[in-house]
Amino acid sequence: MFSRTFLRTNICRTAYQSLYYSTIGSRKQNFHKEDSSTFKVKNILIGGLLTGCIGYYLVGNKKVVLAKESPQSDKSDAVPGNYRSNLPVYSLDEIAAHNSKETGIWVTYKEGVYNITEFVEGHPGGNQILIAAGSSVEPFWMLYGIHENPHVYEILESYRIGNLKPDAMKHITSDMSDPYSADPKRHIALKPACVKPFNAELPPELLVESFLTPNELFYVRNHLPVPEINPDNYELEIEIEGKNKVTVFTLDQLKKMPKHTITATIMCAGNRRSEMIKIKPVKGLNWGAAAIGNATWSGVYLRDVLLLAGMDETDQKYKHVQFEGYDNDVTGKTYGASIPIWKALDRRGDVLLAYEMNGVPIPRDHGFPVRVIVPGIVGARNVKWLGKILVSENESDSHWQQNDYKGFSPSVDWDTVDFTKSPAIQELPVISAICQPTANGTVKVEDGKITVKGYAWSGGGQKIVRVDVTLDGGKTWHVAKFDHQDSTPPPKHWSWTLWSIKIPVDAKLKSVEIWAKAVDSSYNTQPENVENIWNLRGVLSNAYHKIRVNLKR
Amino acid sequence: MFSRTFLRTNICRTAYQSLYYSTIGSRKQNFHKEDSSTFKVKNILIGGLLTGCIGYYLVGNKKVVLAKESPQSDKSDAVPGNYRSNLPVYSLDEIAAHNSKETGIWVTYKEGVYNITEFVEGHPGGNQILIAAGSSVEPFWMLYGIHENPHVYEILESYRIGNLKPDAMKHITSDMSDPYSADPKRHIALKPACVKPFNAELPPELLVESFLTPNELFYVRNHLPVPEINPDNYELEIEIEGKNKVTVFTLDQLKKMPKHTITATIMCAGNRRSEMIKIKPVKGLNWGAAAIGNATWSGVYLRDVLLLAGMDETDQKYKHVQFEGYDNDVTGKTYGASIPIWKALDRRGDVLLAYEMNGVPIPRDHGFPVRVIVPGIVGARNVKWLGKILVSENESDSHWQQNDYKGFSPSVDWDTVDFTKSPAIQELPVISAICQPTANGTVKVEDGKITVKGYAWSGGGQKIVRVDVTLDGGKTWHVAKFDHQDSTPPPKHWSWTLWSIKIPVDAKLKSVEIWAKAVDSSYNTQPENVENIWNLRGVLSNAYHKIRVNLKR
Repeated sequence: MFSRTFLRTNICRTAYQSLYYSTIGSRKQNFHKEDSSTFKVKNILIGGLLTGCIGYYLVGNKKVVLAKESPQSDKSDAVPGNYRSNLPVYSLDEIAAHNSKETGIWVTYKEGVYNITEFVEGHPGGNQILIAAGSSVEPFWMLYGIHENPHVYEILESYRIGNLKPDAMKHITSDMSDPYSADPKRHIALKPACVKPFNAELPPELLVESFLTPNELFYVRNHLPVPEINPDNYELEIEIEGKNKVTVFTLDQLKKMPKHTITATIMCAGNRRSEMIKIKPVKGLNWGAAAIGNATWSGVYLRDVLLLAGMDETDQKYKHVQFEGYDNDVTGKTYGASIPIWKALDRRGDVLLAYEMNGVPIPRDHGFPVRVIVPGIVGARNVKWLGKILVSENESDSHWQQNDYKGFSPSVDWDTVDFTKSPAIQELPVISAICQPTANGTVKVEDGKITVKGYAWSGGGQKIVRVDVTLDGGKTWHVAKFDHQDSTPPPKHWSWTLWSIKIPVDAKLKSVEIWAKAVDSSYNTQPENVENIWNLRGVLSNAYHKIRVNLKR
Repeated sequence: MFSRTFLRTNICRTAYQSLYYSTIGSRKQNFHKEDSSTFKVKNILIGGLLTGCIGYYLVGNKKVVLAKESPQSDKSDAVPGNYRSNLPVYSLDEIAAHNSKETGIWVTYKEGVYNITEFVEGHPGGNQILIAAGSSVEPFWMLYGIHENPHVYEILESYRIGNLKPDAMKHITSDMSDPYSADPKRHIALKPACVKPFNAELPPELLVESFLTPNELFYVRNHLPVPEINPDNYELEIEIEGKNKVTVFTLDQLKKMPKHTITATIMCAGNRRSEMIKIKPVKGLNWGAAAIGNATWSGVYLRDVLLLAGMDETDQKYKHVQFEGYDNDVTGKTYGASIPIWKALDRRGDVLLAYEMNGVPIPRDHGFPVRVIVPGIVGARNVKWLGKILVSENESDSHWQQNDYKGFSPSVDWDTVDFTKSPAIQELPVISAICQPTANGTVKVEDGKITVKGYAWSGGGQKIVRVDVTLDGGKTWHVAKFDHQDSTPPPKHWSWTLWSIKIPVDAKLKSVEIWAKAVDSSYNTQPENVENIWNLRGVLSNAYHKIRVNLKR
């Protein structure tokens, strides 16, 4: 019954650019808004191949114009990563099984499969390469711009052993008993906090290598199975409470409206929850410090769509805009959330119905084909696989709006908690994290100094104005350098700031505790100790980031 | 040369209401904008008496309609506080000299002078009454609503000894060598952090007795002498950079525009600096926790005035709105500050050119006749005695915008500070303070509990969502009750929140340390220790408020 076709789609490429692969599920989930508990599923095969496009991509600071080119237009063996007819074909599973020195270390690049076991020792980046073992090197090459060099591709090609099975993900037998069986394949570098639903983050040391987080490495926070949506049949319903009218937009209609692009960080309310768990158990996934990412998002302004749908912005009656996703549980209950109406209608609010992430169609794990991007607001309100928008006097009555994603006093427990007493989290407070070195890791002392790198971010469009780092428990604070910061002033500063600092260390020390704290443009700063902000859901874990590391000389 | 006339003006009253006195200076300071360094001073006597009005005033939670009545209409000796022809007349100085048990305790109410020395012991409110010794009881009666009772006035009248000299402030000989000689008289309850310029705050225990702070008790933060402005000749100049046009508004013209009223808290960036000073010396006035107040402000929207003056709100060139006050130093240099243009133009920004404070003309110390009220933004940008507005590509180049009112890392000192590296403070971070009991004071344990009261506030239109209080260093946090909170949601929540809590104390303890911290609607919370937010200017002192108090059983 659940037949599916997956297409590997080359979106944009040049000879020197990394190539994006997207898998786009073709199963149409026909969502009956009138009665979401009795929804039906239709399966429609899509045909056609999305081939070539003109696009822009930001790699580090560099804006690259990607030429219009068909992925089928150059089949020369000389082009690294292209299909080579004289070599065997391997499936993703076969490749994934080769992820250690014992099994051999295989990686993929475009259509090529490579055995790089012998190369690993000589890799200038050291063991970092092992993160890609059994998987694609491409997202990492986006992180480390040094690979954008023809010579690197030539070296790689010398380790070529085969081709990636072109229909590697075709004809996967659906497991009817497992609602997650149609979830997309994820990159091996994403470390799951939970597999079903899929929730995963990158090792923090990789996170800060790029101002824009590659799509494949962007943290995934799913609450339900990933729906399969045929973009040709996608429909977005818009309703204004009390008016007997539902306006429907297709993806094509949205794409014909003025397109806007913003760069915005999205963070899970549970980011850095693992530090709270150490104090006292909480309910929630054990996130490290990488449940956050920064990307460009392109689409149409929610404001424009609401006005087109007949919203009168002077009407004071409406207080909230509710969103429903196409993802649902076994009872048909969909994921839901809402934001305050002022944020939705504000020209400075920049709320987008986004259909592109980092210049390509939003991947399935991130909301294909349309996700609402509410910059400055907690990830949970950035509803993926957007199916319905309701302009209302009330907040969403969903579990996630009413009984989850709220903060409480440290002394509130599950016996005393009253979810009606706390507001739903919207704007997030200022946060920072140390990403290099990592907790309990080792850092090399060079010229008497260690290098510390991390990110800082604040919700509500606030800009980071300072990051202070100390190695002596606050006796001496050092001001970090900003390696990458968007120039947009508050209150529209949506991106994180990447920072680094070299700090002298005492020659006698064998290990050191590093603390970092950020200050935003409202001069809010982070609380010092996680104990005093602990809460039973483990959200809003934005205390000073404190990690102990060993020193190597 | 500097002849002056002061008028004691009864603004509004009923028999049961406390009466407002305002002293309005009549010296016209004619401010030549073309060459502010060579300004001239003209002295023009104003005549006429502002008599009676209809108004509203909020006392605690109670909205009171004040009847239209002339202060001259009822001279009966039976009305408490009215002039009694059979009694002697005393000057303000004579009354101020009677401020202790030794000298006798005199107070004033309306036109009456009272010797309450014998009453003090029996005062139901205890020694609190001594705060008014030698001065007016009226602002305190606004704080303590229980006095709104005819019986109270009768008791007071039984202590009547005289009349307040009607022209008590007339013909003060001007001290030409002292630029502050024309400053207004202040209420004795305001405790100066500095006298010239005048900077003073209320004892914190009084601050939280009223949601709206009475004008006479509102903290005063002046940078320069208080200018004397004749409202009849007042002019506000508006200039849009690059356009050869200056638009001038008179006070009358402003008053003919649509009038709007907001309730907003204003706080000095240096509030609670005294706690920073204890860590390490800083440059700045030694403010306690009461450099903050909450009031209603009425006037016209800055946005409306800018549009009337020809501002094109779609012009992206302009980034800031600069303000200049009529206050100036000996070189003629005026006080100046600026705010970002988005705040000035935003309909939700609520920036007012206010001519009323708590329903009466803004008192001289608070900016008579016009002060810009920038809700959610640090007091320093709420420019008093507003003389000029400039829409500009640049921030104000004033000392206070460029080289003051900025935050720095704790390790930055006067040798290393670079004021260009930090942004001017605009929105203030979340703060709270314990006001009752006071630090090192004594609190009575009743039924095993102590009562703690305070305020909490956050800049940027954020609302306080929780105040946590602990008596055991954070092992147990208690959630405070909100005694008074405005219902306006963020991002337009401009008022503070008054809170209180009864907390059980260990029967064995003789003293206890109380900590309070607030959380705002962006879930930002206060930093824990002042050491880690210390900065050389002593601003932004918003760490947990921690005070030790003695317990009385």
